Amino acid sequence: MNQIPYKIYLNETEMPTAWYNLRADMKNKPAPLLNPGTHQPMTAEELAPVFCEELVAQELDNDTPFIEIPEEIRNFYKMYRPSPLVRAYCLEEKLGTPAKIYYKFEGNNTSGSHKLNSAIAQAYYAKKQGLKGVTTETGAGQWGTALSMACSYFGLDCKVYMVKVSYEQKPFRREVMRTYGASVTPSPSDTTNVGRKILEQFPGTGGSLGCAISEAVEVAVTNEGYRYVLGSVLNQVLLHQSVIGLETKTALDKYGIKPDMIIGCAGGGSNLGGLIAPFMGEKLRGEADYDIVAVEPASCPSFTRGKYAYDFCDTGMVCPLAKMYTLGSGFIPAPNHAGGLRYHGMSSILSQLYDDGYMRAVSVPQTAVFEAAEQFARVEGILPAPESSHAIKVAIDEALKCKETGEEKTIVFGLTGTGYFDMVAYEKFHDGLMSDYIPTDEDLAKSISKLPQID
Amino acid sequence: MNQIPYKIYLNETEMPTAWYNLRADMKNKPAPLLNPGTHQPMTAEELAPVFCEELVAQELDNDTPFIEIPEEIRNFYKMYRPSPLVRAYCLEEKLGTPAKIYYKFEGNNTSGSHKLNSAIAQAYYAKKQGLKGVTTETGAGQWGTALSMACSYFGLDCKVYMVKVSYEQKPFRREVMRTYGASVTPSPSDTTNVGRKILEQFPGTGGSLGCAISEAVEVAVTNEGYRYVLGSVLNQVLLHQSVIGLETKTALDKYGIKPDMIIGCAGGGSNLGGLIAPFMGEKLRGEADYDIVAVEPASCPSFTRGKYAYDFCDTGMVCPLAKMYTLGSGFIPAPNHAGGLRYHGMSSILSQLYDDGYMRAVSVPQTAVFEAAEQFARVEGILPAPESSHAIKVAIDEALKCKETGEEKTIVFGLTGTGYFDMVAYEKFHDGLMSDYIPTDEDLAKSISKLPQID
Repeated sequence: MNQIPYKIYLNETEMPTAWYNLRADMKNKPAPLLNPGTHQPMTAEELAPVFCEELVAQELDNDTPFIEIPEEIRNFYKMYRPSPLVRAYCLEEKLGTPAKIYYKFEGNNTSGSHKLNSAIAQAYYAKKQGLKGVTTETGAGQWGTALSMACSYFGLDCKVYMVKVSYEQKPFRREVMRTYGASVTPSPSDTTNVGRKILEQFPGTGGSLGCAISEAVEVAVTNEGYRYVLGSVLNQVLLHQSVIGLETKTALDKYGIKPDMIIGCAGGGSNLGGLIAPFMGEKLRGEADYDIVAVEPASCPSFTRGKYAYDFCDTGMVCPLAKMYTLGSGFIPAPNHAGGLRYHGMSSILSQLYDDGYMRAVSVPQTAVFEAAEQFARVEGILPAPESSHAIKVAIDEALKCKETGEEKTIVFGLTGTGYFDMVAYEKFHDGLMSDYIPTDEDLAKSISKLPQID
Repeated sequence: MNQIPYKIYLNETEMPTAWYNLRADMKNKPAPLLNPGTHQPMTAEELAPVFCEELVAQELDNDTPFIEIPEEIRNFYKMYRPSPLVRAYCLEEKLGTPAKIYYKFEGNNTSGSHKLNSAIAQAYYAKKQGLKGVTTETGAGQWGTALSMACSYFGLDCKVYMVKVSYEQKPFRREVMRTYGASVTPSPSDTTNVGRKILEQFPGTGGSLGCAISEAVEVAVTNEGYRYVLGSVLNQVLLHQSVIGLETKTALDKYGIKPDMIIGCAGGGSNLGGLIAPFMGEKLRGEADYDIVAVEPASCPSFTRGKYAYDFCDTGMVCPLAKMYTLGSGFIPAPNHAGGLRYHGMSSILSQLYDDGYMRAVSVPQTAVFEAAEQFARVEGILPAPESSHAIKVAIDEALKCKETGEEKTIVFGLTGTGYFDMVAYEKFHDGLMSDYIPTDEDLAKSISKLPQID
């Protein structure tokens, strides 16, 4: 067989020592966050009550190309990184494709996903600032789990607001967070003003990510020694997640492999933004070209059917406004099982790159995603998360196209995590009970029509 | 910090190409399986209707020290092996111990445990023999999951009899097996004679491992083209699991590390037997000395409180008799959450070695095990399976002894798997609802008194 191993592991000495800040190479910078009252760009002073100081600096820094990873974070990374870049020999053989398929697997840690890469950074800066703890929201639970692990490592208090319907449907996720010492509150709750208000309006609601964000932010700004942290969307998060792409690139370079295509699932954009960072950097600098593909669920298609405009990041409208591809902060996606991809908006960085034509996007229906997930699991031995399986689906589609055309494309995709806590979804799929709801044009027009008016 | 990395990964070229057969170096060979009717040693012919031919040969081979791993199996191993040998820097620091702690982590595959090492071998030989499929039992579900993955890879049918109480309590495990195309039947069932008989006698029973074995064996011997496979206890399984120990030894040798102590949890003995194999070999040949420790649950203490005698392997008494440390095939351990350690007997190989004084055993209560599990999870970032946590508990105890004495012992333990499907147990632990039931002397005397009488 090929000389390239099944799994390319870097040595610890080959791990990145600095994050790569993609914004430094963007000619058109991502639009700034705006103050929801004044519609003026948020200043560091205005952001300081919500986010840790160093994270605010990272959020606003559009110019520094490399930001050193503190040693404490690098040591934590060594607990579960470098993550393997896997050559999908078995999948290639099963598909009978001449394409060469690689995936960067981020699921081999207890949080089960790439989210830990940013969680540990955000916890570190909170600790360094002398804070007592942090607050956050979680939907599917990967982010909350990752943050719980990170806070436990640094001895920080961790308050997680978990979308109520997930809290009830995923008691095991909640229990993992408790194992790491976090407090987990179903949202909306009566512990915040915004929660009580939402409960009054919608007494039986199962909650939403946007609502949980509003609660977590309120708790952070009203409690001494607390700040709010977020697992996706923000510039700082994409910065931390660049370790995924940097490791991927080092591993590929080691074997002289140049990918033709890079594929990632996209919810808020943290995984995709991290995976593509160094490749997109080359593309922006005109050094190389890659076909970069964002995959989103057909039920929540912010890139493919959303509008590029300023919008609220949360339902309670307490957060700054971000310019992004959005379906409207009032958009509630139909129940689907890729909880990590159900956000109404998209990272400002990726939105700008997409708008500038540096990447493309496709949306895929749920059932086809689970078919791809099962096919992948059976030959590659990894049970993928529903979110990650969106990338699998498109990687398989592209590999089958190569089979038709005979092209020997090199395809790299991000396998963000494992599906151990998603077996209810797999069960529905096996039992033929999974639906493929896609919002109508009217649905989208309605929620998009409510975007805030910004000059 | 130290030059030894957090995780030692071997290259694919350093992976073992042959399994090590510990029996070849034993002066006192393990006692042979006996025909339950004649009490004579089972011959290859007698075993052939139950097990695949090559596996029968491996089962009976007490002499060949190294048995080549077929290339197809080695390729499959490359999908999830080599597994990392992790230096527990963070745990050492937390404990403040001068001891150096390493663990061989077998949980980074979808079956979540070391079981896949033998499952793929057994499936391979079944395929090679031209069989249609295999049958097996599973309790906690790790073995059933591993076998489902292996059968799916080789296109074999896989019929799993799952202890009914686990089938009902662990629907997600069942769903993973379905993802890999296995059929999963709760045991006892009405699909077998022995199942119907047990259901008649005990209508509301939740089943047991011994009962599920009886059903799986019946289906194998009464269906053309099927054989039975087992995930632990047997000599062949320990042979396959020697990859764990061989990789561990290669990794340690690479860095010039000589362990003082090797610790593993012991249910049927497959993980422990595999982990210690090459080290025990050196000990048997007088080339080195190691303190080798088996850890078992206080609720099912076959080594520490059992009798070394011939006993049935299953409740239905259809299997051959094995000489082993046993609590009696009628012993039903109190409900505890380490399902993989609830077997009444112990590997014949390990039983002989223990009886000959080459290793020692300790038993630990459940609550203390979960305390150790949580402590480990918080600093090492891995959520351990309850079974694996037995080894963690004793490794921590030994490291704390070193803290008192100042000894800089090198401790290696086996971390067999992850606890993603054990969150009900963690929840009970968090809520203070976990009990520490330990069988009374009378309980044990009663079940041991019913051992078969062999001359």
